[in-house]
Amino acid sequence: MRMNQTPMENLNPDNDYVDGGADIENDGTGSDASSFLEAREPLLNLKSRTNTSSQIAVVGANVYPIESLDYEMIETDLFKQDWRSRKRVQIFQYIYLKWTLALLIGLCTGLVGFLNNLAVENIAGYKLVITGNLMSNNKYLPAFVAFGGINVVLAICAGALCAYVAPAAAGSGIPEVKAYLNGIDAHSILAPSTLFVKILGSILAVSAGLVVGKEGPMVHTGACIANLLGQGGSRKYGLTWKWLRYFKNDRDRRDLITCGAAAGVAAAFRAPVGGVLFALEEAATWWRSALLWRTFFTTAITTVVLRGLINFCRGGNCGLFGQGGLIMFDMHSSIPTYTNADLLAVVLIGVVGGLLGSLYNFFVDKVLRTYTFVNEYVSSFSLVVYLICYKCNNYDCYSLPCRRGPSYRILLVTVISLLTSCFAYGLPWFAKCIPCPSGTGKECPKIGNLHCQPGHYNDLASLFLNTSDDAIRNLFSSEKGNELEISTLIIFFTGTYFLGIVTYGIAVPSGLFIPVILAGATYGRLVGRLLGSLSTLDLGLFAILGAASFLGGTMRMTVSLCVILLELTNNLLMLPLIMLVLLISKTVADSFNRGIYDQIVKMKRLPYLEAHAEPYMKHLAAGDVCSGPLITFSGIEKVGNIMHALEMTGHNGFPVVDEPPFTDAPELSGLVLRSHLLVLLNLKKFAENRAVCGGQALRRFDSFDFAKPGLGKGLKVGDLDLTMDEMEMYVDLHPITNSSPYMVVETMSLAKAAILFRQLALRHLCVIPKTPGRNPVVGILTRHDFMPEHVLGLHPELIHHK
Amino acid sequence: MRMNQTPMENLNPDNDYVDGGADIENDGTGSDASSFLEAREPLLNLKSRTNTSSQIAVVGANVYPIESLDYEMIETDLFKQDWRSRKRVQIFQYIYLKWTLALLIGLCTGLVGFLNNLAVENIAGYKLVITGNLMSNNKYLPAFVAFGGINVVLAICAGALCAYVAPAAAGSGIPEVKAYLNGIDAHSILAPSTLFVKILGSILAVSAGLVVGKEGPMVHTGACIANLLGQGGSRKYGLTWKWLRYFKNDRDRRDLITCGAAAGVAAAFRAPVGGVLFALEEAATWWRSALLWRTFFTTAITTVVLRGLINFCRGGNCGLFGQGGLIMFDMHSSIPTYTNADLLAVVLIGVVGGLLGSLYNFFVDKVLRTYTFVNEYVSSFSLVVYLICYKCNNYDCYSLPCRRGPSYRILLVTVISLLTSCFAYGLPWFAKCIPCPSGTGKECPKIGNLHCQPGHYNDLASLFLNTSDDAIRNLFSSEKGNELEISTLIIFFTGTYFLGIVTYGIAVPSGLFIPVILAGATYGRLVGRLLGSLSTLDLGLFAILGAASFLGGTMRMTVSLCVILLELTNNLLMLPLIMLVLLISKTVADSFNRGIYDQIVKMKRLPYLEAHAEPYMKHLAAGDVCSGPLITFSGIEKVGNIMHALEMTGHNGFPVVDEPPFTDAPELSGLVLRSHLLVLLNLKKFAENRAVCGGQALRRFDSFDFAKPGLGKGLKVGDLDLTMDEMEMYVDLHPITNSSPYMVVETMSLAKAAILFRQLALRHLCVIPKTPGRNPVVGILTRHDFMPEHVLGLHPELIHHK
Repeated sequence: MRMNQTPMENLNPDNDYVDGGADIENDGTGSDASSFLEAREPLLNLKSRTNTSSQIAVVGANVYPIESLDYEMIETDLFKQDWRSRKRVQIFQYIYLKWTLALLIGLCTGLVGFLNNLAVENIAGYKLVITGNLMSNNKYLPAFVAFGGINVVLAICAGALCAYVAPAAAGSGIPEVKAYLNGIDAHSILAPSTLFVKILGSILAVSAGLVVGKEGPMVHTGACIANLLGQGGSRKYGLTWKWLRYFKNDRDRRDLITCGAAAGVAAAFRAPVGGVLFALEEAATWWRSALLWRTFFTTAITTVVLRGLINFCRGGNCGLFGQGGLIMFDMHSSIPTYTNADLLAVVLIGVVGGLLGSLYNFFVDKVLRTYTFVNEYVSSFSLVVYLICYKCNNYDCYSLPCRRGPSYRILLVTVISLLTSCFAYGLPWFAKCIPCPSGTGKECPKIGNLHCQPGHYNDLASLFLNTSDDAIRNLFSSEKGNELEISTLIIFFTGTYFLGIVTYGIAVPSGLFIPVILAGATYGRLVGRLLGSLSTLDLGLFAILGAASFLGGTMRMTVSLCVILLELTNNLLMLPLIMLVLLISKTVADSFNRGIYDQIVKMKRLPYLEAHAEPYMKHLAAGDVCSGPLITFSGIEKVGNIMHALEMTGHNGFPVVDEPPFTDAPELSGLVLRSHLLVLLNLKKFAENRAVCGGQALRRFDSFDFAKPGLGKGLKVGDLDLTMDEMEMYVDLHPITNSSPYMVVETMSLAKAAILFRQLALRHLCVIPKTPGRNPVVGILTRHDFMPEHVLGLHPELIHHK
Repeated sequence: MRMNQTPMENLNPDNDYVDGGADIENDGTGSDASSFLEAREPLLNLKSRTNTSSQIAVVGANVYPIESLDYEMIETDLFKQDWRSRKRVQIFQYIYLKWTLALLIGLCTGLVGFLNNLAVENIAGYKLVITGNLMSNNKYLPAFVAFGGINVVLAICAGALCAYVAPAAAGSGIPEVKAYLNGIDAHSILAPSTLFVKILGSILAVSAGLVVGKEGPMVHTGACIANLLGQGGSRKYGLTWKWLRYFKNDRDRRDLITCGAAAGVAAAFRAPVGGVLFALEEAATWWRSALLWRTFFTTAITTVVLRGLINFCRGGNCGLFGQGGLIMFDMHSSIPTYTNADLLAVVLIGVVGGLLGSLYNFFVDKVLRTYTFVNEYVSSFSLVVYLICYKCNNYDCYSLPCRRGPSYRILLVTVISLLTSCFAYGLPWFAKCIPCPSGTGKECPKIGNLHCQPGHYNDLASLFLNTSDDAIRNLFSSEKGNELEISTLIIFFTGTYFLGIVTYGIAVPSGLFIPVILAGATYGRLVGRLLGSLSTLDLGLFAILGAASFLGGTMRMTVSLCVILLELTNNLLMLPLIMLVLLISKTVADSFNRGIYDQIVKMKRLPYLEAHAEPYMKHLAAGDVCSGPLITFSGIEKVGNIMHALEMTGHNGFPVVDEPPFTDAPELSGLVLRSHLLVLLNLKKFAENRAVCGGQALRRFDSFDFAKPGLGKGLKVGDLDLTMDEMEMYVDLHPITNSSPYMVVETMSLAKAAILFRQLALRHLCVIPKTPGRNPVVGILTRHDFMPEHVLGLHPELIHHK
């Protein structure tokens, strides 16, 4: 093992927890320890070059170390042997399985989406029926108690699940899925417990009347289902069907998860094409035509499942569920004829919508930061209380649930739920009663007759005391005699805008689409009412355009939003107007801040690789940002040295350098992964002396041994149990060395290296020297080395180029 | 200059015309000629390693050498200096210009699309009016003469334009645009002459009643417009506006051309979202989210322009044009309620449609090959005649238009046009007269009353003697009383299927969408008629599904076809069925052959880089396929040597190796491009002796000098005029050397190298040795080295892995 000492040659791989060398002194028992300690001194001087900028991130409510996923082909000899020996039948098995899994993802996601809908409509429906019955008997206080009580209980259940069982299930989930598809392996974001909580929590939160949607959670649910199916079998449960082993790698899992995310949107909005486009535009980092095709297949299956189940329910078999077909908000009937003068109104909606959308993002960000700050304050406080009461030692306490105050988070959920109930129940009292629509054959809304005369109803109650879906349906409605009052629209807009902002960030699964559509549709309809006869456009169309402008202003998607709105409303003739509004609102909002999902990814400190290099990267070379100690192994290395390096660092990739006498000059043999080293050491096939074992080594291993298990089931250093004798033996690293890692010269501009890194979905990028004769590898670049905090931390003079 | 001689180290860059060394002996006048001739001998032994597999391709009707485009960032010192010195205002200029160009592309393409429609509807309309009038007076022979005559004249005009002015304008154009976006620079495929002929030829061909569409030509037109706008100014015409220089590179041009292709589809089908998806799914090789957004903007502009112009025409200002709004074939009215039993019919349509679609591809391929074969035969024959008559020398004759028989191609156009006229006019006589639809308020079709009694009409004539758009409208129609006879459908299906196959490949701009939709819709409606009461689906819906199955079976697109069909028919409720049909037909067809555009790309021998590596590539290393002589330059090289190398080879990239005494050991300084060398030599800033001029060199040049001009306007070796004294001087290549070319080790598997090559859109990929101490570069891989013909030519033992 070699440890480079000159600053220029010193650099870090994917080290997750470089903790200042605290445990190195305790560790000087290995045979090589003295040389280690010698090498240690200069290293400490290099502390400023150690990359700790983005190695940990907030997932759910806790802070976890962040790893990268292995999307690269690790071309080890073992892998190549396996790869080359695959026969036609095995390729067929692989393809067959790939499509079967896509089918299963589509089926399961469709089913979950349907059950979600069914549960929400029934729970929320019965809640509203009870409240409505009490109200129609003029029992207003009991009605509020029932309404608020049910809401709070449901919300607390959702909050408790998120706080105690799976903190990663809180929030939308789209930022996490986006980060995963970018190659970030955050703690348990796609774990089975997250899946369970996401499904149940989403049902509870939406039924509780919170201003949250179910589409973000559905995307996350789809991704979790895909991850679960793509685990490549489990040895623990004996599910080691031979075919499944092909899926024990991150690349195939990534494709499945993209399909899952698309199926999630398809199930949430019944929008198959919109789902595909969402997955590709917003979620996926790497697009391929083949993936488009598979995603399309998955969403088609989801739609077929949904359609079948909805047809089944139409017969009245599903309780209160059963309204509506595949189109959620059918606007088919309103024929849009618009004059060029109407275009001005549309431009106005786009501009103001873009402004309000970016303001929404700004407030969501501020509120999230406030919640986190208060949470940390509360948890520090509760920690102190805990320490005083129980005198537990610091370490143990940190592993206790008290660490980040779940009780505080449940309290917050309760407060927001109460606030929502008060708003929903209280605000309608400020609205006037208006006569029921006559002649349209529709009954007067039952829930809306707050102390109104017979034949009158309260239009604000028909928005507030309703499910979000029905409220949106009312807003999009273009029927005559259903004009909502201007004051009603103003109150409802203010209410949903405010509640949407404060609700995101509490510990429940909370989608952003529905709150944004609600606020946007109200805003659009309001503009329509205010313009009055100045515009010939229908009010329902104004509501759609308002929703589009808000969506464009917050999410900043284009094609996928367009198609999703089209599939939601079935109104193709609106398409040019929707495109115009989206273009304007996105452009306006982009000049203020970033899209909401990007903002959340950034706030969670997930090391997301951007599509293009930042301008300041043009001023740096790849060698300028390498950091941390570079640890290299010889082609045939002493076991003790390997163990030592694994224990001492958190690096995930180590360059292997063949040295004399095996070669004429030091030569880069390749890169070896920590996970493969752990498996190799665990297999204990060591030799007494430094000798190349060559081809026979391949026969000793099965490449399946080295396949990457999912969900952190891999070996840890602590799992290894090596005797002192074994520590003195040697092991040939060549069979598990990736002999052709991607390389760049140290003088390549960082911008160019960043593009290479992202385009090829790398985890490690070797930096080699420009001039021969030096150490054959100068450093290793990982995702963390491209993060702005790290780069600008090393080169603060470049900040003005940002 | 060094020329490597050992087989292992010898490899070729992008050499375009390796012509067996014919002109090397004539060239031995340079100072270095003797050493060259010495080096020549062993080279000839290496002839088998020279890559000539895919260096030339068929474009239009002629064979041209094929170059690659420079999509990579060429990081020379000059470029870096320019890059780093860009100020905020210049970045703003660049962004502003980018969007302005996108706007202009949208505007122009929309305008051209509208004019195209206008011209076709008027020309074809008046033709049909004349024919109809003659027929209604029972003058059947004059009617045929008028009909056939006008058709032949129009077709010959289109054919003559294609044959004499711009052979590259023949055919669909989509394969060429696809190839361009893959990085293939084929001769004049996006030249202004091609644009002109494409627009005019498409109008003439469609008006001539040939079974061709206008959407493929529109895609090509959009791409040509984008290319023209993205030329980055012209010095020749004094258009050197400073802002435009930012667009003098292939990367920015590629993005514009993607926008142009999308705008083409948007203009042809009035399908903005479909256009974006088409560009991304079928045309573009490299996708980016940012590009999605810009493409979306372009198609939105196109739609707005189209809508405005169509609204203007609705007042009757545009002659016979004026029917229809933004939806071309509005199916809004037919409400699809389908039972699960109908799904069986849909599956049947999908399977049979897939079979017929792949058969269509098979026949198109065969017919194209036959035409080419006959063409070559005719042209060889005419060449012999020409040689005998005029005794011109071989070389001159090949540059004459006689080379590939344009007269033969015009003859072919005439024959096909006559055949089409005979079919269209003759076949309806075999159909029965049926009573006019009564009670729907529609008049009896005027053109269809071939010797029918009053109150009767000929339904086959209403399909054949009509524009394609109106025929499709008839087929998609779901009005009662408009049921087409089974025999009519059979005859029309056979006719269009056959004519579609023989028409593609003649020398006119010919889109494939419309023929495929025509045949597919007839087939679908036929299935509907045959099933009769077994299915409850409407016949118009059957026609849409049939069209979808044919499109899926020939083009093999998914999401984009789905959205295009949706935007064409405005029938969202059909979406699940259309998805199902597309899935099935694509799957069925994929098991027989490739998509029609891929097939044409392959047949034209365009060196298209596939998205994934072929299985046999896993068995080879990058070093195994390097070919041809590798010529390297020193960092400071003698002018004569450079001239010599440029004259002797067609290589486009030369490695630059710094050697002692300037460095300790030979060291790869980078890669220099032929085009940059030519500019450098043309500037004549030479030095008397070998000395590094360093930073001052940068001040001597402007990076704009080295910007890549569009459309083959670059310097040629022949343009240089150097004296013997200058040939003896030295020039420092460092300022124009790309100092960080992408590199792979020779042992990397070819599959992995291929993925790198394609993902990063490279032109040259340096292969470096595994072991240090050898020559620092082993070879250069270009696009041609990844082509199956080349790889399998070198390693025929791998054919069974294909």
